[in-house]
Amino acid sequence: MKLVHLGPVGQEKPALAVDNTYFDLSELTSAIDGAFLAADGVQRAAEAHAAGTLPVIADAAQLRIGSPISRPGSIVCIGMNYAAHAAESGSAPPSVPIIFLKTANTVAGPNDTVAIPRRSVKTDWEVELGVVIGKRASYLDDPTQSIDHIAGFVTANDLSERTFQLEESGGQWSKGKSAAGFSPLGPWLVTPDEFDYRSARLRSWVNGEPRQDSTAADLIFDVDFLVWHLSQYMVLDPGDVILTGTPEGVALSGRFPYLKAGDVCEIEIDGLGRQRQEFIDA
Amino acid sequence: MKLVHLGPVGQEKPALAVDNTYFDLSELTSAIDGAFLAADGVQRAAEAHAAGTLPVIADAAQLRIGSPISRPGSIVCIGMNYAAHAAESGSAPPSVPIIFLKTANTVAGPNDTVAIPRRSVKTDWEVELGVVIGKRASYLDDPTQSIDHIAGFVTANDLSERTFQLEESGGQWSKGKSAAGFSPLGPWLVTPDEFDYRSARLRSWVNGEPRQDSTAADLIFDVDFLVWHLSQYMVLDPGDVILTGTPEGVALSGRFPYLKAGDVCEIEIDGLGRQRQEFIDA
Repeated sequence: MKLVHLGPVGQEKPALAVDNTYFDLSELTSAIDGAFLAADGVQRAAEAHAAGTLPVIADAAQLRIGSPISRPGSIVCIGMNYAAHAAESGSAPPSVPIIFLKTANTVAGPNDTVAIPRRSVKTDWEVELGVVIGKRASYLDDPTQSIDHIAGFVTANDLSERTFQLEESGGQWSKGKSAAGFSPLGPWLVTPDEFDYRSARLRSWVNGEPRQDSTAADLIFDVDFLVWHLSQYMVLDPGDVILTGTPEGVALSGRFPYLKAGDVCEIEIDGLGRQRQEFIDA
Repeated sequence: MKLVHLGPVGQEKPALAVDNTYFDLSELTSAIDGAFLAADGVQRAAEAHAAGTLPVIADAAQLRIGSPISRPGSIVCIGMNYAAHAAESGSAPPSVPIIFLKTANTVAGPNDTVAIPRRSVKTDWEVELGVVIGKRASYLDDPTQSIDHIAGFVTANDLSERTFQLEESGGQWSKGKSAAGFSPLGPWLVTPDEFDYRSARLRSWVNGEPRQDSTAADLIFDVDFLVWHLSQYMVLDPGDVILTGTPEGVALSGRFPYLKAGDVCEIEIDGLGRQRQEFIDA
């Protein structure tokens, strides 16, 4: 199943996408969020669709797409989780998952315009496989339990300002990760039965030129390991989002220019959909 | 004014504390949260109290105290913000504020029992002056604008697991900051007119023995500077919490043992109230 939010900022309707038809889930929930996921929302949406009671959103193609998960409690990010990206960033591959956080108010729709922060000269893209938690996870016994705690997956752009992250930060990365609009998510939240999270292809482009092109099989610490590992250090709540790390091909490598006003960044994960952001000055 | 939540976990009532009397704010809001603060909640609570319409909570002394701010969107922490604490941690004082984040689901009541995380051998206390945002702050012009964006102040314990934070983290601190119950806040949210945030005394004790004893005047980057500075990197939303850093006297210094099951930690900021946590094994 593919879940989606459609409509203007703050007025998004929850919907179920089936082929190219969008079914309104408003009778089940006001939003696709942690409370909905925790209360078997995905199952109830499937049942309502099977019963044929969901109204079609006729003008869906004209509507803005929002983040398919509203108001995450936490955005937990994994750093340096592809060996080639660690190398292009000047680091050895990590021996343990490196965790940092973004503020939850960075979440944006997949195609929303992004304002480059004031003073920024190093705004960078990062296509990432995003994991949305569906059931509270704390001290899981082993990685085989992880998938039962996952509601689905999203395409994510972990936008970053490298001066803020690395040069004005005292070494803690969140300072360059938390500007407004820096976490575009979506278009869809795709349930695990419809997505191969172990090998999906991740790509990015800037102004149509290719940048990143890798697969989730290259993750140093894979999705099952990460959810289990994180659950040893924190409680993962329904609606929380894990960004699993970005592969090589970002501007930080020195091989490409950073983003500037007028640029267009596109990212895509096969099966999870494509994002397109235009950049403007803040 | 002093705002407080009283009642069992998940069933707290919002209240106004006046001397030793607690007035129920349930007719104004279901909780003291960002939406309440953004909608002039403090002002409306004052007006309702002046009008004499608020019912007294007769059994307040018997009730658990919750965090006086519900569901913060973000907990933004400042690292190494007292020179003597930086020194005891083996670091030079920072030239810029160091920012890291805790997950918002770490928030707990000021006197709730704290579970020491599994495998932990280095659970540590950190008394901190907490700032609660009352009005959205983005790109403030200068630090004199900060106070207008602050709803009030809270006593905060920025509990930390040093092995997780420093030895299993790859250098990013959030991994040792986000265990369940690791952010006791309160007892009260005290409005700026009733609290001297520039010089308040901060203290902590373990099993009755003194540990930390400093004042907010020793902050390297003060409250007004921090809110302005943070607003250049992220949007601060109503209900967000800033933990401004801890003074010297924590276990990381090597001068004191870490916390273990059976220990009692107390922290206090003059004017903001005292916390008391018993520690148990998770």
